[in-house]
Order: sequence, then C-alpha cells, then structure tokens
Amino acid sequence: MKTEIDELRRYLQTITALEQAAFVLMWDQATYMPAAGGHARGAQLAAIKQEAHQRATSPALGRLLDTLDAAPGLDAENAAMVRVARRDYEIRRQVPAALVRRIARAHVASHMAWEAARAANDFAVATKALEKNLELSRAYAACFPGAAHVADPLIDISDPGQTVAQVGPMFEGLRKELVPLVRAVQAADAPRAVPRGRYPQADQIAFSRQVATAIGYDFGRGRLDLSTHPFTVAVSADDVRITTRVREDDFSECLFSTVHEAGHGIYEQGIDRAFAGTPVAEGASAGLHESQSRLWENLVARSRPFWEHFYPRLQATFPEPLAGLELDGFLRAINRVRPSLIRTDADEVTYNLHVMMRFDLELELLSGALAVRDLPEAWVARMEADLGVTPPDHNLGALQDLHWFDGHVGGAFQGYTLGNVYSAQLFEAACRAHPDIVPHMAQGRFDTLRGWLTANVHRFGRAKTAAQVIADATGGAPDSAPYVAYLKRKYGAMYGLPVA
Amino acid sequence: MKTEIDELRRYLQTITALEQAAFVLMWDQATYMPAAGGHARGAQLAAIKQEAHQRATSPALGRLLDTLDAAPGLDAENAAMVRVARRDYEIRRQVPAALVRRIARAHVASHMAWEAARAANDFAVATKALEKNLELSRAYAACFPGAAHVADPLIDISDPGQTVAQVGPMFEGLRKELVPLVRAVQAADAPRAVPRGRYPQADQIAFSRQVATAIGYDFGRGRLDLSTHPFTVAVSADDVRITTRVREDDFSECLFSTVHEAGHGIYEQGIDRAFAGTPVAEGASAGLHESQSRLWENLVARSRPFWEHFYPRLQATFPEPLAGLELDGFLRAINRVRPSLIRTDADEVTYNLHVMMRFDLELELLSGALAVRDLPEAWVARMEADLGVTPPDHNLGALQDLHWFDGHVGGAFQGYTLGNVYSAQLFEAACRAHPDIVPHMAQGRFDTLRGWLTANVHRFGRAKTAAQVIADATGGAPDSAPYVAYLKRKYGAMYGLPVA
Repeated sequence: MKTEIDELRRYLQTITALEQAAFVLMWDQATYMPAAGGHARGAQLAAIKQEAHQRATSPALGRLLDTLDAAPGLDAENAAMVRVARRDYEIRRQVPAALVRRIARAHVASHMAWEAARAANDFAVATKALEKNLELSRAYAACFPGAAHVADPLIDISDPGQTVAQVGPMFEGLRKELVPLVRAVQAADAPRAVPRGRYPQADQIAFSRQVATAIGYDFGRGRLDLSTHPFTVAVSADDVRITTRVREDDFSECLFSTVHEAGHGIYEQGIDRAFAGTPVAEGASAGLHESQSRLWENLVARSRPFWEHFYPRLQATFPEPLAGLELDGFLRAINRVRPSLIRTDADEVTYNLHVMMRFDLELELLSGALAVRDLPEAWVARMEADLGVTPPDHNLGALQDLHWFDGHVGGAFQGYTLGNVYSAQLFEAACRAHPDIVPHMAQGRFDTLRGWLTANVHRFGRAKTAAQVIADATGGAPDSAPYVAYLKRKYGAMYGLPVA
Repeated sequence: MKTEIDELRRYLQTITALEQAAFVLMWDQATYMPAAGGHARGAQLAAIKQEAHQRATSPALGRLLDTLDAAPGLDAENAAMVRVARRDYEIRRQVPAALVRRIARAHVASHMAWEAARAANDFAVATKALEKNLELSRAYAACFPGAAHVADPLIDISDPGQTVAQVGPMFEGLRKELVPLVRAVQAADAPRAVPRGRYPQADQIAFSRQVATAIGYDFGRGRLDLSTHPFTVAVSADDVRITTRVREDDFSECLFSTVHEAGHGIYEQGIDRAFAGTPVAEGASAGLHESQSRLWENLVARSRPFWEHFYPRLQATFPEPLAGLELDGFLRAINRVRPSLIRTDADEVTYNLHVMMRFDLELELLSGALAVRDLPEAWVARMEADLGVTPPDHNLGALQDLHWFDGHVGGAFQGYTLGNVYSAQLFEAACRAHPDIVPHMAQGRFDTLRGWLTANVHRFGRAKTAAQVIADATGGAPDSAPYVAYLKRKYGAMYGLPVA
C-alpha cells in the first residue's frame, strides 16, 4: 500500500497546490490588485479552478481510492487522508458536471441581480434570480437521495455531518433563551458607546498586531493586511494570512476584526504538519472554524481579564479619546447590547437571532413553505418578533446579505451560530482542564488557552469531524447550554439583571 | 476559419491565464509572502507551470495550428496570433520532455551550488554544476539542427531572430569604441558622487511615483512595491506591476530603479488591447524590452532637460542633502563614470563592457574554446583588458551573476546591450519625428515621447519582431552608431573630452 498511498498523497498535493494558488489570487484581489485587473483575474481563477476540479473528479483518483479504501494497516494519518479524500470525491462525483456549471452561472447572474436590487433598494429586482438559485439548490440536494431533509446536503457542505434534525432543535432552544435575555438587557440602563475620537490607522494596526501576537498568531507564518471585508486565507501551512479594516474614529472595528481573523488563523496554523498539502489540512467545519474566531473575539477579547492586561496599553496608545474612561465603563462600552437591523453589526447577544432567523427562512424556502416573493415580509415579521425592530427598507432587510445570491440557498448560515455554541463549550472545557487560563489572561498570557485549543481542536484538521472534536474535547455533544450560561453570567453581571 | 480562430484564441487564453496566475505567485513571493511560505510556493508554481506547459505542447494545439497556418484571409491581428503561437509551439515541441525535465532539475541543483560557492567564495565549488548546465545548454541547442552557431538557439529564446553572426560583430565594434571612451573619461577630473544624507523612504517612494506618473506609467493599471531586486511583471493587460528598492542614505537607487521598471511597465501597458490574453501581448524581445527601460532610465532620467524640470522638486523634497548642490554638479554626480567590479552597479558607459564580456565568455564556453574551470582566470583577464580593474575574489568575479547557474549558459546577456543600442536608435528616431520632445522634457512633459514609443514600439507586442520594430521605427537595422554618438556627445561635454 506504500506506493498507492504515496501516489494518492502526490495526487492530492497537486490539487491542493492549485487550490492554494487560487487562494493567493483571491487574497491579492482583495488587498493589492489594481481594480482594473479584475476582468483578467476572473479568467485566471477560472483556469486554475477548472484544472483543480478536473483532477479532483477524475476516474484516476477514484481508482486510487478504491485500492486504498479496503487497505489494511494504514496508520491513522493515512487513513484520515483516504477518508477525507473519499468524502470530497464522492460529493463532487455525485453532482453532474452540467449541474455544477448551471449553478456557477446562476450564482454569477444572481450576484449581479443582487447588486442591481441593492442599487434600486428593491427586492423584486432579484426575485427571479433568487428563485433560480433556490431551484438549483434543491437540484443539488436531490443529488444526495438519502437525506432526511432537503437542506441536509447543503448544510453538509460547510458543516459535515450536521443535519436539520440536530441543528433545528438546538437553535429553537437557544432562541427561547435569547429573546427574553435581549428584552431584559434592553430594559436595563443603556451604557455609553465606545468613545469616538482620533485613533490613527498606523497605531491601530500596531496595537492589533501586538494583540494578535500575544494570543498566538504567528506572524512568521502569516501577515496582516487591509481589505474591505476582513478574512483569513491559508495559502499554505506556513503562510496563513489575515486581513482587517480600520475606522479612524473608532478602534474597535480594526481590533476585534483582527482578533476574530487571528482566531481563524491560529486554527489553520495549528493543524498538524503531517497533513500539510493534503485536504486533511483544513478546518473541520464552518462551525468549528467560527468557534475559534468567536472564542478569541468574544470570550477572550471582550472579557474583563483580557482588558485588565490590555486596557492600560490601549489607553497609552490612544490617550485622547480614552484617558477619561475607566475599565468598567470601557467594558460596558465594548459589550453594549442593542437590537439592530444588520447582522454584521450585531452585538454578541443579538447576533444569533439574526443568524437563526436566516436558517429558519432557508428551510422554509427550501421546503416550499415560503415563496421567494414573500421573503421580505417574512423577514420583517421575524425581526419584529425576535428583536423588536422593523427594517425600513429592503437593503436593511432581506437584501442585506450576499450569501443566497452568491451561493446556495441553504447551509449558508448555521455555522455562525454553531461557532458561538462550540466556542462556549470549548472555553468551559479548557478552563476545567486548566483553571489558570483566566488568571493567565489577566497577566497577558494566552499560551495556556492556545495550547489547549491546539492540542484538542486545531491539530486534527479534518481528521476528526467537528462533532468528534467537541465530543473528545468536552465530553459531550454539541450543546447550547454553556453558551447560554456564559451570556447570562456575563450580561447578568454587567447589566444587573435578575437572571440565574 | 472563424470558428477555429476563436477556438485557438480561447485555447491560448487559458494558457495565458495560467501563466499570469504564476506571475501573481512570483510577484507575491518577491513582495509580501512570509519567507516560511517558500516551500509550498514552489509546489504551487510547479503545479500551475506543469499544467500550462502540458496545454502549450498538446497535439490538440498542433492540429488547430495546422488548420490555421494555411488559412487564407486572416486579418493582421489573427495572423500575428497564429504566427506567434506556431513559433512557441514548435520551439516547445522541438525539445524532448525528458530534456526539459533534466534541464529544470540541473538548474535547481546549480542554483544551490552557486549559493554554496558564493558562501565559500570559491568558484571550484560550482564547477561541476556549471559544467552540467553547459552540457545541457548544448543539448538544448542541438534540438535545433539548422543553427549556424551553437549559441543561436539559446539567443533566440530571449531575442528571437538574433544570431551570433549579427550580434557578435556589432558588439565587437561597440567594444572598440567604449574601451577608449572609458580611458578618456578616467583621465579627466573625477566628479563628486551623489551626496549621501537623509532621504526618508516614504518621500523617496512619493517622488518616484510622481516621476513614474509623469513619464506615463499608469498607476490605475499598476502598482509600485518594494522587493530585493526590482522587477516588472505583467499580471494582465490591466495589471502591470513594478517594484523598486530603497537606500535611505541615497535617493538614486529607488528613483532610477523605479524609472527603469516603469519603462518596462509602460511598454507592457502600451501593447494593443486587441492582443490581450494571447501570447502576442508580450514584449517582442529581451533587447527591445530593455531598450524601453534604459531609454527612460538613462536617455531621459539622467539627462539635463529632465532635471531642469525635476531638480528643483527633488531639492525641495530632500533639502538637507541637496540644497547646496547646483544642477551641473548634480548632473555630473548622477552620471559619474567609474570602472567597477559589479555589472549591476556599473554606470552607463562601463556597463556594456561587463555585458559583452559575458556574451563572449558564453560563446567560448559553448564552443569549447574555454573550459569551465578556466572561467575565473578568463574573467579576470578580460576585466583587466576592458576596464582596467582586477576582481580580488570569485564573488566579485565569475560568481557574481546567477544567470548561468539558474538558466542556460548562452543567450542570457546580449539583451542588456542590445537594449542600450536600440534605446539610442529609437530616441534619435523619436526626436527626428518630434523635435519638440527634448524641449517638452524640460517642461516636465513626456507624452510626446511616450506617445511616439507606444505608436512605434509598444503597441505591436510580439506581432513584429524586434528587428522589424527597429526597421519600421528608425528606417535601419540594429546599429550601435547612434548609441556611441550619444555617449560621446553626452560624456564628451560633461567631462570636457577631446572626442568628436
């Protein structure tokens, strides 16, 4: 089997190398490419992706996997490589090439329709395109006939193994806790916002780099740049790049975006080098990836111990706007809860209500219970029910996210809330294993936490599923209780709420 | 033929898209990639290049070209595309794949041997590797049996159509003029060097951007970054990037490197858009490309009219080191002639003696007249004969250039001097056509010159050979006389020499 395993590894490494090349081109497009280069960039990416896809679906790969599936005596790493490669191969082979092309074309068209609809602030402009995407998402799901729910194969793309039967009830339970928590917080005194003022870009970047380094992001194998939308991309095991953005009147956008992306980056940098260059060397799921970004962004970088260490440094960096604000007021400001219209601007407490609403609407669209043309109305109704706010127009309502117009309707959102749920489970388990994690945070030491996460989450890549990681690391199944407890504890104390 | 032409265009566009993707990866590697990413970058580049090479040598392309070679009624643009594609295809098909692989492996090995030899400052460390490269360069040349000289197929790679029979006598004539000119200049008073002082990096970059913009480099379709070795890369027709480097105690490295690379960039940006995405949309030859960089760097940016406009601006930008230096002294400083040991540091007058020495040594190595082990001695002898200086060690002698260790022995150097020769021919022709070019330069206007170059050189890409461009633009064959006349005129005046 030695020869075949080596052959498979080489085969997969070439596919990975092409996919990584595409990542470099996407990173470049989002950071430094002159805008005029966009047209040719499309052709460059298409040429590479087509080649990667062809190799990833070739019968030669299938034959190699057939030989290895039944092979006895593979070590754990090679067995994981075969398993992950088999999964990717089967999913790709299951979907006819003609459907893949129709979906790709439809996404380009609906992306444009979304932009036109945004320009007109009129959902009706994009109705037809979204109906087409919905139809094609159903057609994609139909390629996997064993699924219990039409959305399951779509969820499985980004959160392998997760299903409506698992995620649905968890989200329903979480929603029942969050809606009253939001109401209770709103009834309390509204805290001050983060003070506006002069936060020069260079100082923000320097401070953000200092924080990212402290929590364990390795700049020797990465970099931090600016882009319109912050993102993380693993160009290779030794080249994991993050981006952020800056508002010069408010430090928080740059800092929390950097910490969030550094969390993703630390995950990628922590994957076992034995998997480098193979499809095992990726995050296990969208939800588990998001658990790492949100853990560092919220459970760490919006916590009191973190700022006991960093707030004097932040004040020294930006004395003018922050000198007069004591730590308590600062913590309330960066944790201010306010129901709002836009998901990406939402605070930690209200955020999941935005996400779970989209998850439920996706299911209704897929099942046929909701027609595309009725989506704007359903959106408004749910915003009022869950958050008590009313979107005044389509751009602030059902047109706000690109996801459904640039990808499948279905499976696009659950990872954001799964990530929050996992983050609290993992942080709780880490603190159980190392009670000094929180005291260390207050001293500016994050290696205890980072080390536990690498040992229990990062290093496996896709060698374990997200559910396996959660089970092995926490001793239980995915469960929203630790997350709800964390929110109640934190915001109960901060807002003086009568919650347990 | 319409269908086949469209098919060929699409086929070539995919190859171009892959090659352009490789350019993005190389640019990234030289500018922003974390050093740790180098290993994976090698695999990424190899995967893309292998795919591009496979397509570029496929029998399918050959059949398409067979259909189109004989096709009547192709318009000029399509005929050029077929001609250029046929040339590339034949050259690639002529060399057996096994030899291509042996050469690639040998270049990697000899690159490493060169680094080891440099570290030891001992040519003998790399003798074996260079002998291997020489043997493989001969084997490459032997794939083209019609050649009059063993070096011709190697020269043809970078300067299509040029041969030893053409280049050799021209270089011999040029050398006969340059050696006495260098002696005469040396006998005159040595001018002061460019004043050292404080030239902050940001100000140097800003000034260099201003100059590059003034001469016609389009930042809307390009960018300027820092790298260890300045270079230009055309990622696409609308994304032509240049790099420079900075010494903070001397403005000249950054400025002249920027202008040099901007000259290359203006060429690429000026190629007719009708050729975009095809192999016609490249410079016609190494020599013609170098003519554009050297024309702007030397004939323009080291000239009195240029600095009549820009020197007050440069003084205002760097008042401390430059306030006390008047224009005449400044011009002498930036045009100081001094025989030196290193080609890349050489001034305008001595530079070609370094290049032509390498050209002659290449021919002797290829013909067998010179053994690799005797190269260091031959190098020293020629340096003494032409420049009157003696390299004290191997690193300052035969180990100074990477070219022969990272590529063919043969064809690597002639383009540098051909570029200087062409630059003077083209500048003379441009000024004949537009006598106001020089007066315009003194007003900071470069569009007259740039416009003539685009109309007579840039726009054709590879649709004309370099010799055709020179013939059509200047009315004559490649000829070193205008270049010699330019040097004698300029340096005769500056150094008060008794030359015609």
